[in-house]
Amino acid sequence: MANEKDDIYYMKIALQQAVIAEKNGEVPVGAAVLLSDGSLHTAHNAPISLNDASAHAEMRAIRAACSATDNYRLPGSTLYVTLEPCCMCAGAMVHARIARVVFGASDAKTGAVESLYQLLSDKRLNHQVQITSGVLGKNCGALLTDFFAKRRRKA
Amino acid sequence: MANEKDDIYYMKIALQQAVIAEKNGEVPVGAAVLLSDGSLHTAHNAPISLNDASAHAEMRAIRAACSATDNYRLPGSTLYVTLEPCCMCAGAMVHARIARVVFGASDAKTGAVESLYQLLSDKRLNHQVQITSGVLGKNCGALLTDFFAKRRRKA
Repeated sequence: MANEKDDIYYMKIALQQAVIAEKNGEVPVGAAVLLSDGSLHTAHNAPISLNDASAHAEMRAIRAACSATDNYRLPGSTLYVTLEPCCMCAGAMVHARIARVVFGASDAKTGAVESLYQLLSDKRLNHQVQITSGVLGKNCGALLTDFFAKRRRKA
Repeated sequence: MANEKDDIYYMKIALQQAVIAEKNGEVPVGAAVLLSDGSLHTAHNAPISLNDASAHAEMRAIRAACSATDNYRLPGSTLYVTLEPCCMCAGAMVHARIARVVFGASDAKTGAVESLYQLLSDKRLNHQVQITSGVLGKNCGALLTDFFAKRRRKA
């Protein structure tokens, strides 16, 4: 599972989801949950489109994977996401017992995996998540930088 | 809004939701979001019943309120919940721009408002939430203590 080529393959799929988010006028973040049975559950960021404050890409991918497997926990799964998860999404990963997270760009403002908080390695919580960061980080970050630059020009 | 009598009134409604959760075999936690228009959106904890790791009472109440108002943000709202919110739920409150949270029992193991983390007062995040804790705290806590004691006896 921790194969670098595989990580890049799945991060490219998460990036495709981020592009869909951007086309919908949402902050371009995409995610994919790879379950232990090999099935993949993708999602794009969609809080505005869905009128749902919780509809980050990671949350939607976790909920889709839970629903597909009829299980509120996803042991042995890997979550790929283009941006470092926030507190909400990192918290959901702990609840879902995600085994490993792979993310692209760091988020200095709200990142809760390495930047502001290190929730996934907090031994006080009842589950820890293995972390790989910086996979296609430049591509994932460029998508976000371009999005916010365009938005500023429009404002 | 910060009237003590009102807080007790709405916490009793959240407690009724916690009792529903318990009847469904879920950890007894209940929540209610009071919107600025006076409408109330209640929910009970339901991750196992719904096969959804994210289906805490607070998340479900926030999503219901967002859906009812066709808005991914809930400015001026108060969230009542019987147990101190976790990282996931506190994170969602920041995203939803909840103005105030009122909770009952503290959660020394996973509480992210006062206990393990103080996410809602973190000035590095782009929104802070006003906090009132300990409202009907003994009643809210007793429901949880009884639930886990019964579960241990069954095990």
